[in-house]
Amino acid sequence: MAPVRNGRVLFNEIPSGYPDPARTTVYDQSKILDLEKEPLEGGFLVKTLVLSIDPYMRGKMRDASIGSYSRPYLIGEPLTSYGVGVVLRSENPSIKPGDHLYGSYPFQEYLVAKDAKAFSVLENKEKLPWSVYVGVLGMPGQTAHHGWKEFAHPKKGDVVFVTAGAGPVGATVIQLAKAEGLKVIASAGSEEKVDFVRSLGADVAFNYKTTKTLDVLQKNGPINIYWDNVGGETLEAALEAAAVGARFIECGMISGYNGEQPYTVKNLSYIVGKQLRISGFIVTSLHEKHLADFHKEIPRKVASGEIKHKEDVSKGLESVGQAILDVMTGKNKGKKVILVSEE
Amino acid sequence: MAPVRNGRVLFNEIPSGYPDPARTTVYDQSKILDLEKEPLEGGFLVKTLVLSIDPYMRGKMRDASIGSYSRPYLIGEPLTSYGVGVVLRSENPSIKPGDHLYGSYPFQEYLVAKDAKAFSVLENKEKLPWSVYVGVLGMPGQTAHHGWKEFAHPKKGDVVFVTAGAGPVGATVIQLAKAEGLKVIASAGSEEKVDFVRSLGADVAFNYKTTKTLDVLQKNGPINIYWDNVGGETLEAALEAAAVGARFIECGMISGYNGEQPYTVKNLSYIVGKQLRISGFIVTSLHEKHLADFHKEIPRKVASGEIKHKEDVSKGLESVGQAILDVMTGKNKGKKVILVSEE
Repeated sequence: MAPVRNGRVLFNEIPSGYPDPARTTVYDQSKILDLEKEPLEGGFLVKTLVLSIDPYMRGKMRDASIGSYSRPYLIGEPLTSYGVGVVLRSENPSIKPGDHLYGSYPFQEYLVAKDAKAFSVLENKEKLPWSVYVGVLGMPGQTAHHGWKEFAHPKKGDVVFVTAGAGPVGATVIQLAKAEGLKVIASAGSEEKVDFVRSLGADVAFNYKTTKTLDVLQKNGPINIYWDNVGGETLEAALEAAAVGARFIECGMISGYNGEQPYTVKNLSYIVGKQLRISGFIVTSLHEKHLADFHKEIPRKVASGEIKHKEDVSKGLESVGQAILDVMTGKNKGKKVILVSEE
Repeated sequence: MAPVRNGRVLFNEIPSGYPDPARTTVYDQSKILDLEKEPLEGGFLVKTLVLSIDPYMRGKMRDASIGSYSRPYLIGEPLTSYGVGVVLRSENPSIKPGDHLYGSYPFQEYLVAKDAKAFSVLENKEKLPWSVYVGVLGMPGQTAHHGWKEFAHPKKGDVVFVTAGAGPVGATVIQLAKAEGLKVIASAGSEEKVDFVRSLGADVAFNYKTTKTLDVLQKNGPINIYWDNVGGETLEAALEAAAVGARFIECGMISGYNGEQPYTVKNLSYIVGKQLRISGFIVTSLHEKHLADFHKEIPRKVASGEIKHKEDVSKGLESVGQAILDVMTGKNKGKKVILVSEE
């Protein structure tokens, strides 16, 4: 069999503001691969099917000398994110051809991997599309589930405020909160997203671009649980509208990811006066405690439609640059997924 | 017996910045009282011995229409704070003449009180000066104890950073942390205070007015536990120097109490990336869980000298205005106490 193209998306330039599809990343077709002859050296050859585009990727687009919880992207090297691929060949007895693997993938069409422990084999008893495994059944869904179980401490009558409610994390949180019988306020960045958020059961849904968040919270609060995906001015409004003893679950602060001067919150003293509990987290730190429960509970509910989700699919690695920008600016209409190849 | 003066300190004007001893409060001598004949109507007559001056009082000097966790001072009415007094007469069977009562006192030399439940009778088996009961054995000591027990979750090898280390809360926290065998970094606002902090066992003690906090933390950190009494720029430095999973105990933010434009923290996104646990609290909410242990453990250790403390006494109600300003600017040299009367 003749060698095939192994298209890749490389990190090309550190952005100073929003990522620029024409400069931050580059789609590279210079590599080729012989699917039958590529040496595996005890490893396995995987064909990438889907890749996930997520806000956290912006944090990796930094000067490699700056430390953080996540490794930086390296100039000239492929981006990485969560993905699902199918095994074509294997020299590792624990990995079989036809297995579907979930894990962190380089942004390329094919890869030879060595470390079986870096991936998990998806059973997919529910026969769901593989893309679901980078969304509501992957890192974003796990983030919502683990964070909620660990930090929400929901009590009867609590009011919950969820930001980025149309994203895969926020949408799942809304449904977890409604399943507990709580009142949910949720924000999103377009009328279409607000409709989706309302369809998930949110009691109050609003477009934060046309309605002032603080007004909505003051009218419908005070809030007992705040799920923060955005930080900045919205966090300030949540502090203002927080009830005594409120729990703030700090999942992300996307409002500050793409600007050089993040909005600075002016009312932090409410943390003391309102006796708040503010918890930042990274999903992987909570896997040990919550992942087994996630696997038991969530795939079944997604398959039955009890937990809803929405995808926004772009086709081919050449669409990655624009997809990243869309996620950073909120132009995506659901969980952003790159469909790299059909099976 | 002829009536005696019942001197009072009244709230006179809402300050816009630091309290002004000549305007914010006024010492009033217009009231008199007959100690033998004043009607008690089932209550009890108390002679005020000591009153506590604390940073939280600044939060009460606000427009009464602004809500907060603590009731505002009312113009023309006496200030209030923690105090100890001795009972002169009583018509309440649970309160006896000679009893010493701890609780919230109006700033006046004598008071007739009705609600015995608002006070606790001090046994003082250790025969300590009554002023100790508004300091290390009162609200400040309880604040340190309860906050540490509830939120510190100390682990072997942890590094602790304590701000306002020479104050009654910070000084106690330093000693609780050292008793756990932890490394303690502590800041204070003068060389004299730094010496005191060092005498309490702090491994690294520095004057934050002459040394940059961030430099000290970067050299001696990262920090696992941050005891925040000050907020603002110091909180920003603590976020910068925090270890993954650090606990931030938010006890106060005095740097923002007396300014109209509080310093705005620019690096809140570390809350997510470093997976921080930030807990604000008011001591009274933790009494139910921790006060009994406090009474069992701390008075004994104070009497034996195992827990050290330091007082800065001003005599007479007429010194209150200046004492408040001194506490807000950090000019006090220990727990600020007003000695209202000798017994």
